[in-house]
Amino acid sequence: MISLAVDAMGGDFAPRNIVEGVGLALDAAPGLCNIILVGDRRQMADQLVRLGKSGHPNIELVHAEQVVEMNEAPAAAVRGKPKSSIAIAVDLVKQGAAQAVFSAGHTGAAVASAVLKMRPLPGVERPAIATVFPNRKGRFLLLDAGASVDCRSQHLAQFAAMGEVYSRHILGIANPRIGLLNIGEEPSKGNEMVKEAHELLTRLGRQSLNFVGNVEGSNMFDDLCDVLVCDGFVGNIALKCSEGTSRLVSDLLRHFLKRTTIRKLGALLSRNAYRDIKDVADHSEYGGAPLLGVNGVCIIGHGSSCPNAVANAIRVGRESVEREISQHIQDRMVELNLCQSRKPTKDERAREERQPV
Amino acid sequence: MISLAVDAMGGDFAPRNIVEGVGLALDAAPGLCNIILVGDRRQMADQLVRLGKSGHPNIELVHAEQVVEMNEAPAAAVRGKPKSSIAIAVDLVKQGAAQAVFSAGHTGAAVASAVLKMRPLPGVERPAIATVFPNRKGRFLLLDAGASVDCRSQHLAQFAAMGEVYSRHILGIANPRIGLLNIGEEPSKGNEMVKEAHELLTRLGRQSLNFVGNVEGSNMFDDLCDVLVCDGFVGNIALKCSEGTSRLVSDLLRHFLKRTTIRKLGALLSRNAYRDIKDVADHSEYGGAPLLGVNGVCIIGHGSSCPNAVANAIRVGRESVEREISQHIQDRMVELNLCQSRKPTKDERAREERQPV
Repeated sequence: MISLAVDAMGGDFAPRNIVEGVGLALDAAPGLCNIILVGDRRQMADQLVRLGKSGHPNIELVHAEQVVEMNEAPAAAVRGKPKSSIAIAVDLVKQGAAQAVFSAGHTGAAVASAVLKMRPLPGVERPAIATVFPNRKGRFLLLDAGASVDCRSQHLAQFAAMGEVYSRHILGIANPRIGLLNIGEEPSKGNEMVKEAHELLTRLGRQSLNFVGNVEGSNMFDDLCDVLVCDGFVGNIALKCSEGTSRLVSDLLRHFLKRTTIRKLGALLSRNAYRDIKDVADHSEYGGAPLLGVNGVCIIGHGSSCPNAVANAIRVGRESVEREISQHIQDRMVELNLCQSRKPTKDERAREERQPV
Repeated sequence: MISLAVDAMGGDFAPRNIVEGVGLALDAAPGLCNIILVGDRRQMADQLVRLGKSGHPNIELVHAEQVVEMNEAPAAAVRGKPKSSIAIAVDLVKQGAAQAVFSAGHTGAAVASAVLKMRPLPGVERPAIATVFPNRKGRFLLLDAGASVDCRSQHLAQFAAMGEVYSRHILGIANPRIGLLNIGEEPSKGNEMVKEAHELLTRLGRQSLNFVGNVEGSNMFDDLCDVLVCDGFVGNIALKCSEGTSRLVSDLLRHFLKRTTIRKLGALLSRNAYRDIKDVADHSEYGGAPLLGVNGVCIIGHGSSCPNAVANAIRVGRESVEREISQHIQDRMVELNLCQSRKPTKDERAREERQPV
């Protein structure tokens, strides 16, 4: 049976929400997987008692004496805390005791641990975090949302292939449309790296990749593509600017709706509309963001994950193992001839040599 | 008296909205400047007749037989259409017949024309478009919003100085707080270029620049800074992702508010709250985005500029000349020792040599 290692100490409401989410996941799909909860044994056991899940046949506890705090530098946390819950959870995958790992804790530490210990998939040069966004008609995948911040065009092409596989096998899109996040629709738009990526994706489009061209930030919610690729710096900016904007709009709305009694009455009558919008934006159904390109399944949860979000992340982790996402990514890389690493140019190499590991 | 050259043919509702905006600007500040309207003479004259402004003592018409269309490549438009309204308007500044130029047309063509003909200010390596955003308490300036898409850290430092000058002299902020748009608060966050920029801005902070550190996209509306710097690719993504998100939210709201009769009634009662939000997001009061770093004043308007937005852009252009923005930028560059161009590293040079001019 599939085993998932779960970092019980990661997240704003850990271990409470994490253990509760594990319970929900096992109730929803009984007997489909084992969960190895990693963290403070006492705290985890207390939570299981609270939930009436002590001695559950599919839950195992592994003690971890350290926790990575949110303000630690990722690399320092990985080196300095080998006995943290996230480190031990990733170790379980590395050793083959688990096939997938989930953490809602320090994203940087989870990514660094996974890359260092699980290693990249053969042929994959950079891992990518794939985040699910809502759009006008359904949802789309944006990657990289922050794992790899200095990218070459070749990396973006690999992100496209990895995102396509995930979209097809986990989100159920038969022939995912791939877009390139850019500052204009025309192929001539963008910085040097992105223009090169457009060329490369256009070439892959002549094979079997369904490349639909550039997509601007202003149109990213218009259902123009199922997978939107960009480097991890730009992706994280896009993700957080959207968060910031929607928070601003909802705060302003709340503020202005309170100004008069009439407006307050109006808001009361239409309150279900606001709830509906919240549901659209609710990420908990999407079940966390996979770190694609590592040798094994790694799912990253939002720090504020509710139990339902944790349960969905665990489901997505299990499905990623069952549906052999890693194998499909490797196959697709070979098919699209993306494994033979293009030799980096002199300036690319110089830039990368300056990067800290 | 100050003369402003206005591209009458640029924008979605040109020349109607442009000429009408010119009329508003002259009515609001009579006798403070001359306007040279550049475009199709017949169409401009018709609009002036419509507005009862034929023969206005402060309006001059200059005929241009070409117009740059929105789908043209910027460089091709500049080379291929020397008699376009935008080219001739910029020529007027170059020749000294005008001190400022305004266009709501093709942004790329306006930037390319201004950089090519007006030339960069001495010491400025890259121009930047500074866009005014609303935030929770007032407004802030984001630059570069799309003029320079391949940047080095030195360019971001120059953007900081230029934005500071504009914020101080036009937006009236005494000691503008400078933020660096990044994917985390810690100095260790970001890609290589942005980490270098953080170092450089920290050094300038020890002089007189009020550098407040990294600002994330999720917090960009939280009034943490008055000037937010980034390269033109990232800035354009941030700008357009915000546009896309607010459009999505407002479309969803409209959709969900129509679902039931009760909700519709509620929406009717609270409709003034929606109008208030629109007012916050309304860019027309900010008066266009200045292209900073060129030798002369160049104001870029939104394609959909209403007459009021055009009038405000003209006011901002006039004020930029009156308050000697270009001179202040040069002085500040010298003061912060940002003129001595840092020698580009080998990889930076290689990258730039690959760029088309």
